[in-house]
Amino acid sequence: MREKITPRSQDYSKWYTEVIRQAELADYAPVRGCMVIRPYGYALWEHVKEGLDRRFKETGHENAYFPLFVPMSLIEKEAQHVEGFAPELAVVTHGGGKELEEPLVVRPTSETVVGYMYSQWIQSYRDLPVLINQWANVVRWELRTRLFLRTMEFLWQEGHTAHATAEEAQEETLRMLEVYADFTINDAAIPVLQGRKSESEKFPGAETSYSIEAMMGDRRALQSGTSHYFGQKFAKAFDIQYQDENGKLQYCWTTSWGMSTRMIGAIIMVHGDDQGLVLPPRLAPIQVVVVPIWKKEEERTVVLEAVETMKAALGACVRLKVDDRDEYSPGWKFNDWELRGVPLRIEIGPRDVAKEQVVLARRDQPGRAGKSFVPLAGITDAVTDALAQVQNDMLKRATEFRDANTHEPADYDSFRDAVAQGFARAWWCGDVTCEDKVKEDTQATTRCIPLDQLEGNGQCIVCGNPASEMTIFGRSY
Amino acid sequence: MREKITPRSQDYSKWYTEVIRQAELADYAPVRGCMVIRPYGYALWEHVKEGLDRRFKETGHENAYFPLFVPMSLIEKEAQHVEGFAPELAVVTHGGGKELEEPLVVRPTSETVVGYMYSQWIQSYRDLPVLINQWANVVRWELRTRLFLRTMEFLWQEGHTAHATAEEAQEETLRMLEVYADFTINDAAIPVLQGRKSESEKFPGAETSYSIEAMMGDRRALQSGTSHYFGQKFAKAFDIQYQDENGKLQYCWTTSWGMSTRMIGAIIMVHGDDQGLVLPPRLAPIQVVVVPIWKKEEERTVVLEAVETMKAALGACVRLKVDDRDEYSPGWKFNDWELRGVPLRIEIGPRDVAKEQVVLARRDQPGRAGKSFVPLAGITDAVTDALAQVQNDMLKRATEFRDANTHEPADYDSFRDAVAQGFARAWWCGDVTCEDKVKEDTQATTRCIPLDQLEGNGQCIVCGNPASEMTIFGRSY
Repeated sequence: MREKITPRSQDYSKWYTEVIRQAELADYAPVRGCMVIRPYGYALWEHVKEGLDRRFKETGHENAYFPLFVPMSLIEKEAQHVEGFAPELAVVTHGGGKELEEPLVVRPTSETVVGYMYSQWIQSYRDLPVLINQWANVVRWELRTRLFLRTMEFLWQEGHTAHATAEEAQEETLRMLEVYADFTINDAAIPVLQGRKSESEKFPGAETSYSIEAMMGDRRALQSGTSHYFGQKFAKAFDIQYQDENGKLQYCWTTSWGMSTRMIGAIIMVHGDDQGLVLPPRLAPIQVVVVPIWKKEEERTVVLEAVETMKAALGACVRLKVDDRDEYSPGWKFNDWELRGVPLRIEIGPRDVAKEQVVLARRDQPGRAGKSFVPLAGITDAVTDALAQVQNDMLKRATEFRDANTHEPADYDSFRDAVAQGFARAWWCGDVTCEDKVKEDTQATTRCIPLDQLEGNGQCIVCGNPASEMTIFGRSY
Repeated sequence: MREKITPRSQDYSKWYTEVIRQAELADYAPVRGCMVIRPYGYALWEHVKEGLDRRFKETGHENAYFPLFVPMSLIEKEAQHVEGFAPELAVVTHGGGKELEEPLVVRPTSETVVGYMYSQWIQSYRDLPVLINQWANVVRWELRTRLFLRTMEFLWQEGHTAHATAEEAQEETLRMLEVYADFTINDAAIPVLQGRKSESEKFPGAETSYSIEAMMGDRRALQSGTSHYFGQKFAKAFDIQYQDENGKLQYCWTTSWGMSTRMIGAIIMVHGDDQGLVLPPRLAPIQVVVVPIWKKEEERTVVLEAVETMKAALGACVRLKVDDRDEYSPGWKFNDWELRGVPLRIEIGPRDVAKEQVVLARRDQPGRAGKSFVPLAGITDAVTDALAQVQNDMLKRATEFRDANTHEPADYDSFRDAVAQGFARAWWCGDVTCEDKVKEDTQATTRCIPLDQLEGNGQCIVCGNPASEMTIFGRSY
């Protein structure tokens, strides 16, 4: 029997790691700070990828693949960019048994190598826009790592686009932010705030950075996807020029945007409970698990026969798993699949077969409230409806939790209390001095300046000076 | 207008590179020996991945992800393995601005790190078999590189399995070889020989290596996929043990198998012609291109209307692209899509609209022979049938070419002629001295010892000693 998971209320961080390891989502690799994504975790990632990739293609993007290694001289071309990434680089100095003339950086992100290629591919306004995405691994030398949230190597997608005008590039930046929000809300059942990052929280080299921010189960924030507008900074650093309709050379306007395996961390933390994972049906590798129940051998035959019939119909509509292992009891299996967060469980014993019914149990509503009897005849509709209901309820519950823990403090004292307990939405003058003071006093940072703003103005929650935008503050991962 | 491609007969290698670059499959990266896979090439790779991934899942495998970096001490655990890969390693010596205590190898393949994890995950016979695949990038420090065929970094999948018995592991090795053959023959329309590698051509650390071998358009061989049986060698090096049903500790039996972006090189070389790529319909990113033809503006409206109607029906069944660009002539478009190897072209002008028909042109049969008139009413069936026909004919043509260039020489003199012109199938005693002599005399190597063997014995084509197996010899990439 496996060990009981530490309750969330006792040690949230321990709970998080135990859920990941016991549910076999991931494991520690033999290299410090790196992880192995195990089959169950990778299947979840495959569904995340599908949900995003479909949306990228629907918005006109194509996939490509750029190299893992970036010559050191190339990464140094954009001053702010290299300044931001220099402390996190992994460097290859030897290859084929020899010391290299120029060290190669293992990509922390690919703006530089993409910029180099775009300068060759783009000649004319007819070549624009260029809308490319890549699915890849990247490496950032992190000292404090945590499974899925911050690992030295992680998997992600990075979109890189080039446009003829600033307006088009800005539209693209916000379009992709919206794509991330749409995926996260509708597929991952996680409510997010879309907003602009403050100057000090921007991506190195960006003119403007946007993010989606979600609230985890411990009321901390997780930046769950980012979209950057570069203006002409990278185009000038990498000489990405095009001839416009009048034959004049112009610099392009570029963007980039990314989402990573961090999203898995968000799914675990937003929805998980003391029994383990709770996975949103749209992304769950297994949507429905069937646990057949019997005592005598003749019951076994009868029950498994009914299961086979049900599987034939239901297996075509949902991702179904039948757990007919002999070596475990039904109770053990219930716990096991609860730990793994399978959204629906079907229990079927000899009496159910006789009554032509099954028991349907929802993972997101433990106990009797989530259980119902369903006639075998209407099983497909009942299961499809229940999955949709679970997906909706999970989003609703997460939204209510986020909203209940988002405060609008009237003064700095209540602001301090607010960010200790969740998010604070407050007026901010935009000055980095105020931002730094908040960080020092509370460990909280500006998460984002939401795109949705109220009319009017107010006074900065820190210094009292006039402020034109409300900002979300919170402690973050 | 783009430059004309060098004819294959004039310079095959130049033809190969020009096709790749002009069809925008790939480009040289700013790092020596690395490539960028451009969207059209990557879309082709996505179809290769889908074809393989589906087959892996059907045979019970799951995907996972192991880390990019391998500690040097780990890669040194299996002596033959490290000996084989040592000259090709890329090594990270610095991270986060500091020199590392232990250098990290960028994975050239993942047997070592997988072995380390399997030793932790596998406890009991109940945990077996473990059937895992990963899609990943790997790095091998190659000096002479060529786009897709041999690049310093390449994309591939690597399967790694662990079993309770030697028989099961051997079965798995051959099952996956068969999966590769099935994919390559049926999806890539490339005939392959399945066979065992000679002792000198084995994967470093394998007990037995198998490969599928294909003949390229210049009659050279390309090893297109490999499957390795490790016996207990890696299990002993990494301590992968399980408790059997009697409670006794046993070492596992392991395998690995891989196919890479090299397959794209095979598709280009087997099917391409002097006009460019010829893609097999099952893998082609665009299966059908529609080129509308008009001169006057009122014709444009009529033709594009008919195209829209056709697209609505056909677009649901096949991967369809309508090329309605105004800036290019139909003739230019024909050449462009021929270069890109789109299997079928539909031409439709105002007269065709009036007659309710289109012209269907096959890429694999240039000129009049490949053209036919098809009534618009039956377009979907006609196109589906034509795609199936193209797929079949491409395999048939490649098989005939391979067979016509495979010889069974009677003596060493004709053997030398044979391997200069294609494959030789000949008796070989299995001695490395004979293998070395052939290499020195002819540059040809043993490609594989086919699984399909005739009854009986013969005399080694080199030394005349008794030989029990026929072997395929050829010059290879």
